[in-house]
Amino acid sequence: MSNPLVIEAVPGTSYADITREFEAPVAALFRAHADPELFARWIGPGDERTEVTHWDFRTGGGYRFVQRDGDGEYAFRGVFHTIRENELIIQTFEYEGWPDQVSVDIIRFEALDGGRSRLVDHSVFPTVEVLESMQAEGMERGIREGYEKLDRMLAGER
Amino acid sequence: MSNPLVIEAVPGTSYADITREFEAPVAALFRAHADPELFARWIGPGDERTEVTHWDFRTGGGYRFVQRDGDGEYAFRGVFHTIRENELIIQTFEYEGWPDQVSVDIIRFEALDGGRSRLVDHSVFPTVEVLESMQAEGMERGIREGYEKLDRMLAGER
Repeated sequence: MSNPLVIEAVPGTSYADITREFEAPVAALFRAHADPELFARWIGPGDERTEVTHWDFRTGGGYRFVQRDGDGEYAFRGVFHTIRENELIIQTFEYEGWPDQVSVDIIRFEALDGGRSRLVDHSVFPTVEVLESMQAEGMERGIREGYEKLDRMLAGER
Repeated sequence: MSNPLVIEAVPGTSYADITREFEAPVAALFRAHADPELFARWIGPGDERTEVTHWDFRTGGGYRFVQRDGDGEYAFRGVFHTIRENELIIQTFEYEGWPDQVSVDIIRFEALDGGRSRLVDHSVFPTVEVLESMQAEGMERGIREGYEKLDRMLAGER
């Protein structure tokens, strides 16, 4: 059984707050976002394979990755505005199939008692309509299934 | 007399659309955003002096500048998510005095007849409250006075 995924989005606004706890220390949770080989193992819905094609994980750096499933190929890219180890990632995010609709994620990492941790992602979309489209196209499922893979990875499973 | 500055922000949303026309070709308008020496001459309200401390104007690059007036010093920084010459700049923006409140500007450049041009900046703030604070603290004045300096620069005045 996994921890609940909480997505709060006030109707009429263009942002969502995504909160999830993990049964792992904050340093391990952060490393799963910092290391491209680890990141590729959990990001995205369950049936996709991820290839990281660019990775420069530092303030001012950037990234790009491609996901493939039976239906096709989906590329995503962005820049890292701020990286603070074990604490904060601020990054842009764009699905190349929907060019110039760039969102920003302000992702906070918190240490909890008992070697546990919490992630809070304030995800800001360019308009209300873009957020509603992302919700309609399975944003919640993609996030939930990704974090379930991350749970298994942090527990030491392949 | 300068062209009107139009700022449209629907109450309850966290973004504003800023539209301004210029009596100069789109290439000159874009260059005033691309060249750090030109940029420093017009950005910000009328009484501030700007020093560009970092400038890497390309997709994946970044920038930082410091403004000084009689009261103090204000630093701003961000990354360039997308640059398309004479057409589009997508960049993050942070006032270092209000850390981690990062906004995104999606700035479109349009050629108009008669050697004129139009700029449309879709400016996205992380929350409704951040946009309202920026409005209360003189966002409109800073933009208006900056573009009036840009008018004079594009007209060939110092």
